[in-house]
Amino acid sequence: MYFEEEQGFLKQSLKVEKKLHEVKSKYQKIEVYQSAELGKILVLDGNAMFCEKDEFIYHEMLAHVPMCTHREPKDILIIGGGDGGVAREILRHEGVKVDLVELDEEVIKVSKEYFPQVGDWDNSRLSVMIESGMEFIAKAADQSYDIVIVDATDPGEISNELFEATFYAQVNRVLREDGLVAVQGGSYWMDLEGHKQILETVGRPFWIAMPYTYPMYSYPGTNWNFILASKKYHPTADIILQRADLLEGLQYYTSDMQRAAFTVPKNIKKALLGIAKN
Amino acid sequence: MYFEEEQGFLKQSLKVEKKLHEVKSKYQKIEVYQSAELGKILVLDGNAMFCEKDEFIYHEMLAHVPMCTHREPKDILIIGGGDGGVAREILRHEGVKVDLVELDEEVIKVSKEYFPQVGDWDNSRLSVMIESGMEFIAKAADQSYDIVIVDATDPGEISNELFEATFYAQVNRVLREDGLVAVQGGSYWMDLEGHKQILETVGRPFWIAMPYTYPMYSYPGTNWNFILASKKYHPTADIILQRADLLEGLQYYTSDMQRAAFTVPKNIKKALLGIAKN
Repeated sequence: MYFEEEQGFLKQSLKVEKKLHEVKSKYQKIEVYQSAELGKILVLDGNAMFCEKDEFIYHEMLAHVPMCTHREPKDILIIGGGDGGVAREILRHEGVKVDLVELDEEVIKVSKEYFPQVGDWDNSRLSVMIESGMEFIAKAADQSYDIVIVDATDPGEISNELFEATFYAQVNRVLREDGLVAVQGGSYWMDLEGHKQILETVGRPFWIAMPYTYPMYSYPGTNWNFILASKKYHPTADIILQRADLLEGLQYYTSDMQRAAFTVPKNIKKALLGIAKN
Repeated sequence: MYFEEEQGFLKQSLKVEKKLHEVKSKYQKIEVYQSAELGKILVLDGNAMFCEKDEFIYHEMLAHVPMCTHREPKDILIIGGGDGGVAREILRHEGVKVDLVELDEEVIKVSKEYFPQVGDWDNSRLSVMIESGMEFIAKAADQSYDIVIVDATDPGEISNELFEATFYAQVNRVLREDGLVAVQGGSYWMDLEGHKQILETVGRPFWIAMPYTYPMYSYPGTNWNFILASKKYHPTADIILQRADLLEGLQYYTSDMQRAAFTVPKNIKKALLGIAKN
């Protein structure tokens, strides 16, 4: 039995033993599969989000790259991220407060049940709100966050507005003057045109906008991209080495890995000329 | 219609329009498929070797990493590489002479017919020999090469001896005192135990033995590893920047990409402790 996901020219099939859970929430279909080699797999609307064996890669790279680029991050906003993984990673940093705004309460419920180790739900520095990210950020005060992390599903019905310019204008407004944002940016590898469009939209209000790479077994084509957009700090010049390399409990991320992830193949660099800002 | 390849927990299916060629040579089954997005795909014994759209990644990374690590490479030996791609990349470097030793003449024939752009067959600095790599190297003079590149198929009936200690003792013998070798090393990502075994075997006679990463659409799991083993030069400390960044015609490789490729995830670094030498 396979869990199959198609992406352009490629179909990836992960061996699974059985489906553990399926529920149709108000917003999407949520499934959990069991795989012998990969552990449990979380699937939203037919797209694998992560498996137990690789979730640390996605969550460490989405959390620690912005956290170790900002000089003194205190107030963090996560839009989406209802599985709890990005919040868990951010809460490894001392003295940080996290607001997590998830649209779909059912994602949190399923995650707590099937992936309890992915979350750090009882941490007193974490506030969880069930609300649309777009609506939440429209009401948030100017310059109230140091870092915004957008951990949504791929562009589609429920997350489309999180890939639009009006949303990033709001992100820019709620960020302090040295703030930065990290967001899932598709894949310059699997879909260069789609990636260019997201990079252009996210980066428009910012000084710096650069893609970085992370590998996930559970994604078709394996290598996908986050985008870091920033008002001041540069993700390879301004890494806070102590914070990056002395953090306990990490399995993937190091300061060297941060630098490596921003290294773009020569042909892609050329394709992103005038769109990437660095 | 799909070309399918299974690797452990994962099956990758590439959309193809038709099979253009199939021949059973003395050693293996050789197939060529046509794909709309990936161009033609070369398949040996059921394993995709490359497609037209990604072959430059494999060939640039296998050729230029050793070439730009060695201070003055002149004499290069390629074992395998009958598609011509690695030789084409090495011949971009001026004043270099290449001996290519391919076991299966049919691979060269099919490559010349279906992938003429991958080879640089008429280059006067290239000598092609049809022979077993093991037998060729046993007869070769001591210290007669600066770089050996092993571009064979995955371990299996016809290439097994190229993954054994006796072969690397010979490689060590034919290399000059500052020589180095690059070889396909499986994937620490898809098969950590298999990779550890190859790394240990290849590295045994050498001072330095390090895996590096390259991504190929056409491989299950995408990210695979080459191994660089070296008597003297270090692949991230000794990069010859001019040679790396001023070479014409490259699409993937840069000196930054060389450094990035040697960056190993934290958990893998721990798993390779005592096996990788750096």
